[in-house]
Amino acid sequence: MKKIASVLIACLILIGCNTQAPKEESRIIKAVVPERPSGQTDVLSLATDPIPTVRVAFIGMGMRGPTHLNSAMNIPGVEIVAICDILEKNVEKANKRLEDKGFPKAQGFSGDTAVWRQVTELPNVDLVVISTDWKSHAEIALKAMNDGKHVAIEVPAAMTMEEIWDLINASEKTRKHCMMLENCVYDFFELTTLNMVQQGLLGEVIHGEGAYIHGLQPYWKSYWNNWRMDWNRTHRGDPYPTHGLGPVCQAMNIHRGDKMNYLVSVDTKAIGNPAYLKEQMGEDVTDFRAGDHTSTLISTEKGKSILIEHNVTSPRPYSRMYQLTGTKGFANKYPSEGYALDKAEIDPEVAGNHENLNAHSFLPKEVKDALMEKYRHPIVKDIEEKAKTVGGHGGMDYVMFYRMIYCMQNGLPLDMDVYDLAEWCCLVPLTELSLDNNSAPVEIPDFTRGGWNKLDGLKFAQ
Amino acid sequence: MKKIASVLIACLILIGCNTQAPKEESRIIKAVVPERPSGQTDVLSLATDPIPTVRVAFIGMGMRGPTHLNSAMNIPGVEIVAICDILEKNVEKANKRLEDKGFPKAQGFSGDTAVWRQVTELPNVDLVVISTDWKSHAEIALKAMNDGKHVAIEVPAAMTMEEIWDLINASEKTRKHCMMLENCVYDFFELTTLNMVQQGLLGEVIHGEGAYIHGLQPYWKSYWNNWRMDWNRTHRGDPYPTHGLGPVCQAMNIHRGDKMNYLVSVDTKAIGNPAYLKEQMGEDVTDFRAGDHTSTLISTEKGKSILIEHNVTSPRPYSRMYQLTGTKGFANKYPSEGYALDKAEIDPEVAGNHENLNAHSFLPKEVKDALMEKYRHPIVKDIEEKAKTVGGHGGMDYVMFYRMIYCMQNGLPLDMDVYDLAEWCCLVPLTELSLDNNSAPVEIPDFTRGGWNKLDGLKFAQ
Repeated sequence: MKKIASVLIACLILIGCNTQAPKEESRIIKAVVPERPSGQTDVLSLATDPIPTVRVAFIGMGMRGPTHLNSAMNIPGVEIVAICDILEKNVEKANKRLEDKGFPKAQGFSGDTAVWRQVTELPNVDLVVISTDWKSHAEIALKAMNDGKHVAIEVPAAMTMEEIWDLINASEKTRKHCMMLENCVYDFFELTTLNMVQQGLLGEVIHGEGAYIHGLQPYWKSYWNNWRMDWNRTHRGDPYPTHGLGPVCQAMNIHRGDKMNYLVSVDTKAIGNPAYLKEQMGEDVTDFRAGDHTSTLISTEKGKSILIEHNVTSPRPYSRMYQLTGTKGFANKYPSEGYALDKAEIDPEVAGNHENLNAHSFLPKEVKDALMEKYRHPIVKDIEEKAKTVGGHGGMDYVMFYRMIYCMQNGLPLDMDVYDLAEWCCLVPLTELSLDNNSAPVEIPDFTRGGWNKLDGLKFAQ
Repeated sequence: MKKIASVLIACLILIGCNTQAPKEESRIIKAVVPERPSGQTDVLSLATDPIPTVRVAFIGMGMRGPTHLNSAMNIPGVEIVAICDILEKNVEKANKRLEDKGFPKAQGFSGDTAVWRQVTELPNVDLVVISTDWKSHAEIALKAMNDGKHVAIEVPAAMTMEEIWDLINASEKTRKHCMMLENCVYDFFELTTLNMVQQGLLGEVIHGEGAYIHGLQPYWKSYWNNWRMDWNRTHRGDPYPTHGLGPVCQAMNIHRGDKMNYLVSVDTKAIGNPAYLKEQMGEDVTDFRAGDHTSTLISTEKGKSILIEHNVTSPRPYSRMYQLTGTKGFANKYPSEGYALDKAEIDPEVAGNHENLNAHSFLPKEVKDALMEKYRHPIVKDIEEKAKTVGGHGGMDYVMFYRMIYCMQNGLPLDMDVYDLAEWCCLVPLTELSLDNNSAPVEIPDFTRGGWNKLDGLKFAQ
């Protein structure tokens, strides 16, 4: 009987453990955080020795590579060392462009999907710019860092949690910059608004929205080997969250005083993309994974919320949403740019002779224009004209590349670090996990492994 | 040993049951659906005998009651029988208005919070219009139905799941109309867009958004006994979802071919409302429940998604968002009204001599205007001018009241039934439940108890 009793007690404890767990905790899918390898420390505010002339290699010259090459050609103190693409014609085109503009030809690499391995090993390269398909981003970046190079990776830089942690560990171990080329944070409205936020004009930003809403029908056939459609076909979730999330995270100082705690996602069924495949290729796809529209809500440690949406198929005007709700003001970018401010925050110098301005309406155009002029972000003041001339999504591509090179040349921390990359990319795998579990909340790991509260807000080095 | 073995097996079965439940199901908080009382059937398409002259009693004449009275005064075949309010002055004011316009005085009831009980018992009343504080809506409506009256209840009509099921059971048992006075579904842009949807112009609507974003600082002191702020103070979640949800649910034919399956909610901390209480009343409130901004995602049986937001404190321009994403077109109301349509859907008759119109841009203003003229909803064609003259949120209050009376006079089903009321109100308790469980998904019951797929789409009787 004693034995029965003890077995019973053991069983009851087991059952008890299971049912007595706090119910709110038990419904969250917990994050797994790999232990930081010993001897490694974080790369918050990582600064490396100044590199007066930054020697750059470009891997991937299909869609985004040429834009980055163009930016590089317009920044003093940059040497374009190598150009690599699977297709020889892309390399030749790039070299022709260099020659046309009076630059020396770069070393060319092409021919197969492994040729990039020779590029990361080059001895005369400081920075590798990776603009290949999503699936190869992390693998190339990892080898490049281990080969002693800084890396700049197109969005999203990583598609799985394993890739994300690998990039973090590689950056921490090698002390190399690992930056994602998230250009939308440099768009003029976003940058100006960020400056307003940093100057306190919007009060505390408590809610932010962002999206990638862009009908890709005119572009689907441009992706080498159909990689983008294939990803959407085989993965549920938001595969392209960084343009929407980046600017909001910067305004909220994520991992610089706050951190994202968990997310929940809801999507629709897939109609638009399978219809496109049927119409264009005659294919009947019945197991298309990505829904037409995917929405994700995020909750942060400091009680803020973020909404991120993804839709690349519905007949809708382009929108990244970009909206910030603060305790003292509001900013909205799509479908029309506008600000609303608490009466107390409206600077008479900016408002002119407008009376009765308040947060129940958007500021009139002339007041908005004056406000944007006043709060133009310091980092673009000197290069805005140049950026507009060089172009690339209206100049933001140039500002991004300029800032990266400027910081490297001056031995300053880059504007975006590997933890930004991790936070903005983790929605790719974690939204899929939430959706595959009926929208259950999924924990977002602290990618800094304890350092999220060390820095006091986002600061762009100058 | 046999005994130990059998105890062990029993325990293992117990543990097994707990851990082997499908993980995606176990994370949802399940709905409890009370069994339908025997002898009761659903009230889908409920039509009652024509009432050529509808005799109306108004309970609650503070904020919304006077608007409904005004609508009633402008509809032929309506007799205003009784006016009831806690405050005598509100009753007097209403009666003065009746007299000024040449109507006979109504029977007045006032003095305390129980006086309405005499009104629902009046023998000469067909319809009771309830515009009291949120907490008393359901109680009054229940008694009125049990006293043999049809009821029209201000939003939200019910605040708890118990109240919602009580109203459903009462309507099913008494066969009385139980309609929520959700006016925003009658706003002109929403109604016109609904007509476009019903004509197939937007294709299948797969995603919808709605909100109540309205800084209530100028209004907080108008609510009798501070009931609205008190609700926000003591409840987390979205207490006012119906203006955003109603028009979206109509476009998606909820409980007329689709149903909402579950929701997840994320909110921010509370800053704005406690700051208001501190500033205006000197009160230090540290346990304010409702966050400044609450966002809710809903997933439907047919694979659609809905986003609903609530914010009554941040400095933002008024917005109900109202946005529909269809497979062939897109509609957006805030901050500016616009439509985008697939090329194939653009009617040359409407487009005029515009070439190259497509869904990558909003239709130009003149095309949008022509489209809205063409798709004006049939139910407003005859009364639009009158509605604009009578007013009430630009006319939609009048259209709503007119439609309700028109259907009662003609023995037709009302535009909205008690299941709409239930679906639109259930967000009040269910968002709170999700938030109190770290945004866990919460099942939304099928309030029709099996009838959600009986009707083929929403139709307004004519």
